Amino acid sequence: MSQALAKPGILSLAAGFTDNRILPREIVAKAIRELEQSGSNEHLQYGTNAGRPGLRSAILQFLRQAHGESVPTSIENVIVTNGSQQALYLLVQTLCDPGDIVLVEQPTYFVFLQLLQSLGVKPLSMPAREDGNLDVSDLAAQIDLLKRSGQWDRVKCAYFVTFFDNPAGRCMPLQVKQDLGILLRSQAPDLPIIEDSAYRELFFDQPHDAPSCLSMHQWRGQPIVYLGSFSKSFASGLKVGFAVSNTEAILKSMLRFKGPQDFGTTHFSQAIIERVLLGPDLPSYLRSSRAHYRAKALELNDALSAGGLRELGWRWNHPNGGLLLWIEGPEDFDSSIDSAFCRACLEKEVLYVPGDLCFANGERRNGARLSFGAIPGEQIPEAAERFCSAVRSISKNTALA
Amino acid sequence: MSQALAKPGILSLAAGFTDNRILPREIVAKAIRELEQSGSNEHLQYGTNAGRPGLRSAILQFLRQAHGESVPTSIENVIVTNGSQQALYLLVQTLCDPGDIVLVEQPTYFVFLQLLQSLGVKPLSMPAREDGNLDVSDLAAQIDLLKRSGQWDRVKCAYFVTFFDNPAGRCMPLQVKQDLGILLRSQAPDLPIIEDSAYRELFFDQPHDAPSCLSMHQWRGQPIVYLGSFSKSFASGLKVGFAVSNTEAILKSMLRFKGPQDFGTTHFSQAIIERVLLGPDLPSYLRSSRAHYRAKALELNDALSAGGLRELGWRWNHPNGGLLLWIEGPEDFDSSIDSAFCRACLEKEVLYVPGDLCFANGERRNGARLSFGAIPGEQIPEAAERFCSAVRSISKNTALA
Repeated sequence: MSQALAKPGILSLAAGFTDNRILPREIVAKAIRELEQSGSNEHLQYGTNAGRPGLRSAILQFLRQAHGESVPTSIENVIVTNGSQQALYLLVQTLCDPGDIVLVEQPTYFVFLQLLQSLGVKPLSMPAREDGNLDVSDLAAQIDLLKRSGQWDRVKCAYFVTFFDNPAGRCMPLQVKQDLGILLRSQAPDLPIIEDSAYRELFFDQPHDAPSCLSMHQWRGQPIVYLGSFSKSFASGLKVGFAVSNTEAILKSMLRFKGPQDFGTTHFSQAIIERVLLGPDLPSYLRSSRAHYRAKALELNDALSAGGLRELGWRWNHPNGGLLLWIEGPEDFDSSIDSAFCRACLEKEVLYVPGDLCFANGERRNGARLSFGAIPGEQIPEAAERFCSAVRSISKNTALA
Repeated sequence: MSQALAKPGILSLAAGFTDNRILPREIVAKAIRELEQSGSNEHLQYGTNAGRPGLRSAILQFLRQAHGESVPTSIENVIVTNGSQQALYLLVQTLCDPGDIVLVEQPTYFVFLQLLQSLGVKPLSMPAREDGNLDVSDLAAQIDLLKRSGQWDRVKCAYFVTFFDNPAGRCMPLQVKQDLGILLRSQAPDLPIIEDSAYRELFFDQPHDAPSCLSMHQWRGQPIVYLGSFSKSFASGLKVGFAVSNTEAILKSMLRFKGPQDFGTTHFSQAIIERVLLGPDLPSYLRSSRAHYRAKALELNDALSAGGLRELGWRWNHPNGGLLLWIEGPEDFDSSIDSAFCRACLEKEVLYVPGDLCFANGERRNGARLSFGAIPGEQIPEAAERFCSAVRSISKNTALA
């Protein structure tokens, strides 16, 4: 992969980055000018382990105002992290020991699976319906089975990406989210829940109609840690994420791990994000970002259709937000990282994320994650055509065999 | 402690921070203007896990030019971290398993001891001479004993703070460093060495006369990881540290731990530091910082002397750099975190770091780490007098008892 990336002509639909062209240079510059004019140097000094109080307060205010969330009002219920990635790491350190089990979706965020592996923790896929969403009744049966087989004691949390998820670009439907809360409250009321909302702000037309689990009465009492990030919605180069929880003890324990790791997230970045959240420019920036990615998503969709993928048995749902398109070949198509198809894509100089990486045990091998975030818009048709051409070459060989 | 810190009148000689008043606001602003004018947004995008190639190259160049170090020339030999603190964390994750042993100095950096504890790793103090420096011949005997008792297999690295160290403000003398290299090459040639140089740039009059272990022929072949930081010498708010090693395999393994933790250090901060290292302003900034802290160190020294500490049996060496003064009471004086003296200081509203925290097993209880970094210069006499007054009150009670 790294050899392939070094090729000058390679086109990448793999990287989950945002588009360099629209990064908020002017808004960041303005925030920094304000910091400079404040007459204080404190933004260049160490901050605290938990993060800037002003930023933590601004994050809670943002969740209330932008999304109408009923989040806790105390800054003790929010901590700042090095992107939401660090929050995931601290959470697994906090909640799990080696050999423990974390419940994950199908598919799920593949770097989270790598994280679990690096800490010796085992992912276990929760059941999915035909339409790809979580199957809550089958989950009830799964929990029951885990209890009866004596494995439930090792299940330490469940992980959900609920808004325009990575990799599938899907939101958890309101009804599923309600049913899930009711099930967990009854069958697993102490199970900590990680709700990852990294892509939430990047809706194309309108926000997803379900609130965070933190705000839903069906979830009341469940320990929930809601993770957010300004990497996708604003600037990944600032590396600021956060965790909001109704359970302070979990955050306190995360901070005990964070202390010796770094003493606290880059203070200068935190000061910039705080200014941006309190200033007037974020809403219009988000509006233009959403329009930008909506257009790029359409471009990719159209190019894949034009390449004849649907006729070859591939299917996908057009996402309503995020940076990612999840696409599945016929059941027996192998797009996994060791497949002939993956090699064909490298030969044709186009990169994607093999779908098997996004399953707890690589159980499905016919998916692919395509990102329309980082790639320059005018290169999307060519990248898609290379991908389709690789599909056609493999399908043809299969037909001949 | 956190209750004490909330008192409005508290004076802290505890925090190991730099002085807000001299933080390099103008130099940072200039670097950011240059980034803005570059016409690129890449500094607001994700970077790589290992860090910006340009910064890694600039770090190696800085070590060669500012210190005449014979460091490796490939950027594969340097990675960027969230302060040198994260490098320490990644190193212990890389080199140690729970139950393993790390050799440390007396005293040593107390957050490193906390880090070891959080990862289930045991610190073991190396022997010290009467003058406080490492006793190399006793270390030879210690290594021998560890081998004969079957414990050597568990010793996974040795940790040294070799320039104006935390907490003692001491440098490892050239002769000790040479003898140590010779000993290790002969008795423990595979033992990885962590050389922490966080305070190296903050010499008062001239640089310490010993180079890094990386440059010394006595150390050739030993696996060495040299850690540096721009937090003390420039701006902790940017949170940029680094690790340089003659052993790429260790850095690669650190990156495998860093990946799922954060994908790479804040890219914007890295871009700023890169500009600063390549620009003309750092040397004069460092010159004025050094003069600033030299004056504050003298102020603290004089105030402690004026408070009569030496007459009460306290002793200290005046540091030649750094931000810290290490001070020791009479052998039977108890300045530990649970002591009556520590409570007396809290009552008198002055904070210090109890020395017992800086020993692997709290084996010495009569030391104190005093910082002259963060405290405003004009408050140093009052803070020192409060400390001396607490000493006098305890000494008097002891004399009466």
